Amino acid sequence: MVGKVVCFGELLLRLGAPGRELLLQSPQLQVNVGGAEANVAVALASFGHDARFVSVVADNTLGTAALMQLRGHGVDTSAVQRGEGRMGLYFLSTGAVQRPSQVLYDREDSAFVRAGGGEHDWATLLAGADWLHVSGVTLALGKACHANAVAAIRQARAMGVKVSFDGNFRPQLWQRWEPQDAIPSVLHALMSQADLLLASHRDIEVALGRRYEHGDATARFEAAARDAFDAFPHLQRMAATTRGQRSVDHQVLAAVSLSRDCALVTAPAQELAGIVDRIGTGDAFAAGVLHGMVSGMDEAAILRFGLAAGCLKHSVPGDFLPLGVAEVEAAMGEGGFDVRR
Amino acid sequence: MVGKVVCFGELLLRLGAPGRELLLQSPQLQVNVGGAEANVAVALASFGHDARFVSVVADNTLGTAALMQLRGHGVDTSAVQRGEGRMGLYFLSTGAVQRPSQVLYDREDSAFVRAGGGEHDWATLLAGADWLHVSGVTLALGKACHANAVAAIRQARAMGVKVSFDGNFRPQLWQRWEPQDAIPSVLHALMSQADLLLASHRDIEVALGRRYEHGDATARFEAAARDAFDAFPHLQRMAATTRGQRSVDHQVLAAVSLSRDCALVTAPAQELAGIVDRIGTGDAFAAGVLHGMVSGMDEAAILRFGLAAGCLKHSVPGDFLPLGVAEVEAAMGEGGFDVRR
Amino acid sequence: MVGKVVCFGELLLRLGAPGRELLLQSPQLQVNVGGAEANVAVALASFGHDARFVSVVADNTLGTAALMQLRGHGVDTSAVQRGEGRMGLYFLSTGAVQRPSQVLYDREDSAFVRAGGGEHDWATLLAGADWLHVSGVTLALGKACHANAVAAIRQARAMGVKVSFDGNFRPQLWQRWEPQDAIPSVLHALMSQADLLLASHRDIEVALGRRYEHGDATARFEAAARDAFDAFPHLQRMAATTRGQRSVDHQVLAAVSLSRDCALVTAPAQELAGIVDRIGTGDAFAAGVLHGMVSGMDEAAILRFGLAAGCLKHSVPGDFLPLGVAEVEAAMGEGGFDVRR
Amino acid sequence: MVGKVVCFGELLLRLGAPGRELLLQSPQLQVNVGGAEANVAVALASFGHDARFVSVVADNTLGTAALMQLRGHGVDTSAVQRGEGRMGLYFLSTGAVQRPSQVLYDREDSAFVRAGGGEHDWATLLAGADWLHVSGVTLALGKACHANAVAAIRQARAMGVKVSFDGNFRPQLWQRWEPQDAIPSVLHALMSQADLLLASHRDIEVALGRRYEHGDATARFEAAARDAFDAFPHLQRMAATTRGQRSVDHQVLAAVSLSRDCALVTAPAQELAGIVDRIGTGDAFAAGVLHGMVSGMDEAAILRFGLAAGCLKHSVPGDFLPLGVAEVEAAMGEGGFDVRR
Amino acid sequence: MVGKVVCFGELLLRLGAPGRELLLQSPQLQVNVGGAEANVAVALASFGHDARFVSVVADNTLGTAALMQLRGHGVDTSAVQRGEGRMGLYFLSTGAVQRPSQVLYDREDSAFVRAGGGEHDWATLLAGADWLHVSGVTLALGKACHANAVAAIRQARAMGVKVSFDGNFRPQLWQRWEPQDAIPSVLHALMSQADLLLASHRDIEVALGRRYEHGDATARFEAAARDAFDAFPHLQRMAATTRGQRSVDHQVLAAVSLSRDCALVTAPAQELAGIVDRIGTGDAFAAGVLHGMVSGMDEAAILRFGLAAGCLKHSVPGDFLPLGVAEVEAAMGEGGFDVRR
Amino acid sequence: MVGKVVCFGELLLRLGAPGRELLLQSPQLQVNVGGAEANVAVALASFGHDARFVSVVADNTLGTAALMQLRGHGVDTSAVQRGEGRMGLYFLSTGAVQRPSQVLYDREDSAFVRAGGGEHDWATLLAGADWLHVSGVTLALGKACHANAVAAIRQARAMGVKVSFDGNFRPQLWQRWEPQDAIPSVLHALMSQADLLLASHRDIEVALGRRYEHGDATARFEAAARDAFDAFPHLQRMAATTRGQRSVDHQVLAAVSLSRDCALVTAPAQELAGIVDRIGTGDAFAAGVLHGMVSGMDEAAILRFGLAAGCLKHSVPGDFLPLGVAEVEAAMGEGGFDVRR
Repeated sequence: MVGKVVCFGELLLRLGAPGRELLLQSPQLQVNVGGAEANVAVALASFGHDARFVSVVADNTLGTAALMQLRGHGVDTSAVQRGEGRMGLYFLSTGAVQRPSQVLYDREDSAFVRAGGGEHDWATLLAGADWLHVSGVTLALGKACHANAVAAIRQARAMGVKVSFDGNFRPQLWQRWEPQDAIPSVLHALMSQADLLLASHRDIEVALGRRYEHGDATARFEAAARDAFDAFPHLQRMAATTRGQRSVDHQVLAAVSLSRDCALVTAPAQELAGIVDRIGTGDAFAAGVLHGMVSGMDEAAILRFGLAAGCLKHSVPGDFLPLGVAEVEAAMGEGGFDVRR
Repeated sequence: MVGKVVCFGELLLRLGAPGRELLLQSPQLQVNVGGAEANVAVALASFGHDARFVSVVADNTLGTAALMQLRGHGVDTSAVQRGEGRMGLYFLSTGAVQRPSQVLYDREDSAFVRAGGGEHDWATLLAGADWLHVSGVTLALGKACHANAVAAIRQARAMGVKVSFDGNFRPQLWQRWEPQDAIPSVLHALMSQADLLLASHRDIEVALGRRYEHGDATARFEAAARDAFDAFPHLQRMAATTRGQRSVDHQVLAAVSLSRDCALVTAPAQELAGIVDRIGTGDAFAAGVLHGMVSGMDEAAILRFGLAAGCLKHSVPGDFLPLGVAEVEAAMGEGGFDVRR
Repeated sequence: MVGKVVCFGELLLRLGAPGRELLLQSPQLQVNVGGAEANVAVALASFGHDARFVSVVADNTLGTAALMQLRGHGVDTSAVQRGEGRMGLYFLSTGAVQRPSQVLYDREDSAFVRAGGGEHDWATLLAGADWLHVSGVTLALGKACHANAVAAIRQARAMGVKVSFDGNFRPQLWQRWEPQDAIPSVLHALMSQADLLLASHRDIEVALGRRYEHGDATARFEAAARDAFDAFPHLQRMAATTRGQRSVDHQVLAAVSLSRDCALVTAPAQELAGIVDRIGTGDAFAAGVLHGMVSGMDEAAILRFGLAAGCLKHSVPGDFLPLGVAEVEAAMGEGGFDVRR
Repeated sequence: MVGKVVCFGELLLRLGAPGRELLLQSPQLQVNVGGAEANVAVALASFGHDARFVSVVADNTLGTAALMQLRGHGVDTSAVQRGEGRMGLYFLSTGAVQRPSQVLYDREDSAFVRAGGGEHDWATLLAGADWLHVSGVTLALGKACHANAVAAIRQARAMGVKVSFDGNFRPQLWQRWEPQDAIPSVLHALMSQADLLLASHRDIEVALGRRYEHGDATARFEAAARDAFDAFPHLQRMAATTRGQRSVDHQVLAAVSLSRDCALVTAPAQELAGIVDRIGTGDAFAAGVLHGMVSGMDEAAILRFGLAAGCLKHSVPGDFLPLGVAEVEAAMGEGGFDVRR
Repeated sequence: MVGKVVCFGELLLRLGAPGRELLLQSPQLQVNVGGAEANVAVALASFGHDARFVSVVADNTLGTAALMQLRGHGVDTSAVQRGEGRMGLYFLSTGAVQRPSQVLYDREDSAFVRAGGGEHDWATLLAGADWLHVSGVTLALGKACHANAVAAIRQARAMGVKVSFDGNFRPQLWQRWEPQDAIPSVLHALMSQADLLLASHRDIEVALGRRYEHGDATARFEAAARDAFDAFPHLQRMAATTRGQRSVDHQVLAAVSLSRDCALVTAPAQELAGIVDRIGTGDAFAAGVLHGMVSGMDEAAILRFGLAAGCLKHSVPGDFLPLGVAEVEAAMGEGGFDVRR
Repeated sequence: MVGKVVCFGELLLRLGAPGRELLLQSPQLQVNVGGAEANVAVALASFGHDARFVSVVADNTLGTAALMQLRGHGVDTSAVQRGEGRMGLYFLSTGAVQRPSQVLYDREDSAFVRAGGGEHDWATLLAGADWLHVSGVTLALGKACHANAVAAIRQARAMGVKVSFDGNFRPQLWQRWEPQDAIPSVLHALMSQADLLLASHRDIEVALGRRYEHGDATARFEAAARDAFDAFPHLQRMAATTRGQRSVDHQVLAAVSLSRDCALVTAPAQELAGIVDRIGTGDAFAAGVLHGMVSGMDEAAILRFGLAAGCLKHSVPGDFLPLGVAEVEAAMGEGGFDVRR
């Protein structure tokens, strides 16, 4: 079953040091296109869904090039506007062994932020859609972007389009929000509109002003999720990955989800050795969960597909997961790691 | 002791995505030369033997470039003919983590296939040779190639040249053989002529129409090999590697061999972490076993050298193992993984 | 506290095969600048210290380019002389799996060796310095280089500048020393002047003509160090790393140090999986220990910082560790392997 | 004014040697996507028109990647079918000085050819279109492709969609057509349906069986064009570039066109020094002329825009001209060769 | 004679498309460091002078990497401050044939601009200097930068340090200055303080509000320069290059200079075919003229050296001219274009 | 007609900066294999002749890799010995515009020089050969190499093998010869044995101690050649190219030859714009002339083929000319610079 998903957020260019070099250790940068919501859109389009991206990109060659990538991956970019200002950039040095990957954001004053995310006729853009997907990154970009996201979500609810919200809480991005103590209510308001929440116990801690410190990651997730169901009336499902880190390129990823009035579902931990690119793995998980829901999978299958998509992303350079459903399913099987020929 | 080995098969160009990228994720392809029998020839030449390659390559720049590589590695290419038609290609995306490497064959209607492997004066080409090496890949390329291989093998037997046959059973390559139910007899007839069989229990299953499902890989190998000695009168030794896969780039490789009227020999499993290139590892194993036999090693040493060659191949980019005997022996030692300087 | 350290040794160019390729497997070489003492200087400069490098480099474009790198990293190169002759080179093929990295030295008759390390006014160069750092590599380069190092160390002692000596014993480099049986006394004389000895039990075995064969690496280190304190009157501390090798790119590194009249200090073993570049890790350890001592850390902290610097080097391509104190300290913390953003 | 143009033809992958290297001189290939009609579609899309590409591409990763490029450039690929068989390839070594660029076609038995160009509902695909663009390359690919092109053109004429035909006569591609003496009538029939003919006197020579040997390139073009207007009732305009070659990377390009019952129009010769990529320049010219016609330019302006597009293509790597109208117009101006900043 | 020159301006990172590709045509960017005044500093340091750079760079990895380059080239960077904000960037696509190179500035809100160029103790920084070099780019960056440059120049005049001012008038950079009609007086005031003016007639047109439209480039330069000597009391010399453009990569460069109360001096036009990198050629010319003046050359020699430096820059990738006096002089000789070996 | 030619000389590795960069401007080097006599051998093998190379290369990975290249190009390397010592290297920065290419030799104390060129059984090696080719470079490498070349030439004359000598006079290489005033007699003695002399008037000036200063390059060549025929009894033909330099990458090449008792033959000047690689062009010319002579061409054809080979080399990266006779002949035709497809 093909779903139609509208994703709203900023498109970024990633400028990465080659291989495992430090930034500018050699005079070269590899360019990728990314951004939390765009990553979700590309994965959904690769899974065969009708993914529309709503955004504003710089009205220059960089903006054009970024859009070409997105369009090439089959995302409908007809609603992306061109605006004054620069493309948001981020510089990346991929880590190794005990040296973590390092992101240097250079996204201030981007065309997206200047335009407050653009002026969109949400009623038209959401017509016929099954889902609207937004992430906390967009809220953090400023008042205008926040207001825009709120308008989109309101319109979605009004039209019966379901709302997916990925918390994506990154303190650094929220640093400029004023007043700082309003951040919880901002998140609370957004989560109140969500049908699907991709969020860890930390996102809920911020939104509800509580602490989940007891038990392991799974227990903290469950406690937070139960509170979330109490607090957010529309919420149907909350899901998250839990990550264990042996080293920079050897980690372990599991997933957990809770649906309203159901028992907790877990997907077993996957060993991820020789990680190629960890960026965008949360977005791949989100897209996987959305795919599972749109496709009518059962609880466990949704989570397992989401986790498999998130795991698979670790093997693909760049922010995107441009692989199909068959490839995700193959990664869910036992073994099968030998050359396919 | 230097042996003289004649290898007959197709030469291919590998066009590979850089690093761990998906195919055409960036607009670049790395080119390597390969092909099961050519790989054996290069490894044997690197081990110091007199390796002659018999084939047909396209009469164009690609064919010339492929031959230059082979000749550069010290293989005698004087018996390689140039023919009408294209070079066989295969595209490769090297996998990572949970994403397996993917081969996309584009070798139909190659100059080799068009020419049925070429018209060769086998009596002349085999004069003075110790071994003729052929693999199941060549049979699968069509009736004319098969007939050519049969002719070569018959001539070898007639001249007292020993025959090495690597099953290399890949269902995809045999898909066009007609009738499909003749495949077992084709393999059976070939194996009947072999002195050395590089084959797993699966190859024997196809050739003998039996199933080996009991026990671990070693047990299944032994059962299959015992049957093979019954079925194939000339057979002196059968050897194979057994592979365990923890992830795409972390595997475990062991080896097992059986000689007529002997006890099973095993070579202990080797951890292979951080695999660089898994293609051609079976061919490196075959070349290692042939080297051991030509050099008059004992049972266990032959297998250990073969396994070490196969393991070492995992660390070298490309299809070839262009390393000498000393380097294989060094890899057989304990530890010694630190920088050599 | 910023220290001033003078490092004396040869500067080399490293010409390395790309990725995990064999040397000249593809027609490209990656160029890095290195050399044991230069590596220490760069790390110290990156830690914020005042690092002066004393050397002779070829009076050609290669020498200029090598100096540019060093100066770029903030090392004071004003005392480096230009001389007749060639730049010392070394070719590197980085290994993988079971294939060790291979260094091919091409440094004979370099400008440094021709000039015997140069004619330096050591009194001026050492004025105000806290430490002089020299390694065994420089001694092994010939009588003139050895005499030069001796002169520098004598001057240092005379001026109250402390002496750091890294044994760096590599048999291959000492092969041309004559007579061979004088090597122990050469090393003994040097070590007699050292305040800090970066050396394993093997270095002490050579210098003292004893064998340390009992117990594990730690026990052998302690026995050797205790003998060193007896033999070398100025010695205050001896430190070393101990390395365990699971495969070429998966190793384990610990460290141990002993100060005169103190108990042995150990820093716990670190797993180093997915090693990027192992060259220069001992120099990074040396620089880390010197940093710890200059900064007035306690015994355990010095060793832990040194080990962390050595471990971190495994994640950075090239000979240098161009990372700051904060980055080393971050690597000393628990976990924290996820993307920093 | 935005036009809607439907282009029908094969999509190819170009695998090119880097820089000015010979093919496989180093083990790398640069990948570009191209094909005469796809090139026209991309240029038209870049000029702001609604360009639809109709084709069949291989149902594998290569086909997907090729389509992604086309879609990225804004071409409507919804009518491209996926088929059995391989992607057509061509290998390119870009020449220099006195060594001409060399194309090695490897496009036999492609998915496009196997499917005879695909089964298309031309009435639907052409609905609302202003132009259908086809080239002689497609005819030459075999009877089925030819029949498909004829069907498309008939449908276009029936619906009042104008027909653009680019002769693109390349003897090598027509070598397999049987009988060879039917080629003129094939071309004659096609040209009889064209409103716009992009063709030199050589194309007309083949189609009409005459020779134009008198005078310079312009005179020969005019004579051929006058005969073409007599022979082909629907023809409204014929246009061509004329090329002078000083060396492989220094050429001179002019253009000439004739409209029915008009005087000859010429666009003055442009010096093209330091040519980057000559492939696709004729397609860029075709797209430029179509743009001029769709935009309602006058005779001279159409030709000058077409020539400017063709000239500009020489400066862009790859088969495509992904530049906008403003950039073509800038290249038409005087001077203005300095850095734009 | 070694001079001491202080250069004040912004340091930028250039992110360039590889070869002659369009920006992001392939997913790679080449990184160079540049900026008008930094370029002058590097060339002067390469000519053997004592060049100090005064600036503010971002307090992040990009700033550190840019400084490493500058320091590597021997420029004294001890007066460069680290500031809040981003590094100024510019993206470059190098043109070819008829496609001009294209610069896309992304330098707004840089650390330099935020800090108004920094807080410098100009009296200390200029102590012992022969020259202060500033360019119009710095003025255009805003009121604070302008005030900073004025303060530096005033201090220089007060201390007897000569002032070099490069007009570098680029309308795009001045677009945000308010009020626009104050620009002439800003330039006028600056030029009034200059001993050396690197400026074309266009710079003087802006500063003096006149037009120089008669005669060729030389005549217009002379007329403007004569007016400049009338208007600016301290001015001793004005110099400029004049450029003729045959194509993007084939240009002709000459130079002209006038000293107070002297006859015009011209340096003959140089053919520049196969231009590698045109960026920074004006800065190389400025550095060449400064070198000539500091070295006490005569009028004609100064201009010829300046022109030779400017011409030579066209052959070197990147913004810098890291070549010595001998290499510039060699380029001034007749012929001598064959391989030096 | 296939000839058999024995070439004796040193094999070198070229380490070149990428594109038009300065040496080590970016941290990468491109590797090629070359050497005057090896270049001749590769060109002759590519022209279809039986080319044997006699040399000594380092007994390490670099030597092996260099030999692989040579063997790949079809040169018989069975007579190349492996020796103690290093591979001779040269570093290259390819120039542009007015910056000449720069070679930095690093070939002292190579394995070839250490071994005096090796110990060869010249009678066996020359058996059946038509030509022995030696160049002045080998003489200049020292007394032992010189003696070896003399021995080879004597044996050749004794066996009726014709001798080709390429003067290749480079003052820098002869700097260490002692006594310097013996150089003319060394060259004189060698030239006395030559049947074919590839030499300019400058080589003859050195050998005969005369000056040829009147007239243009052709006249000076003729005067020198006439004297050479008087002085050297075996000489049958002397040939040279004459080069005009418009810029580093735009030159003009003509050729001239004289046979005993014949009129001068000239081959018309060829424009070489956009030169890719000028190294090895003289060797390509030499190989072309040898091909013409072996093939029995007439005077004019020999020279034209030689010149065409020399010109064509300018378009191929690296030292070698790995192109066939058909490609050289195509370059001799008129025009034909357009894409071959």
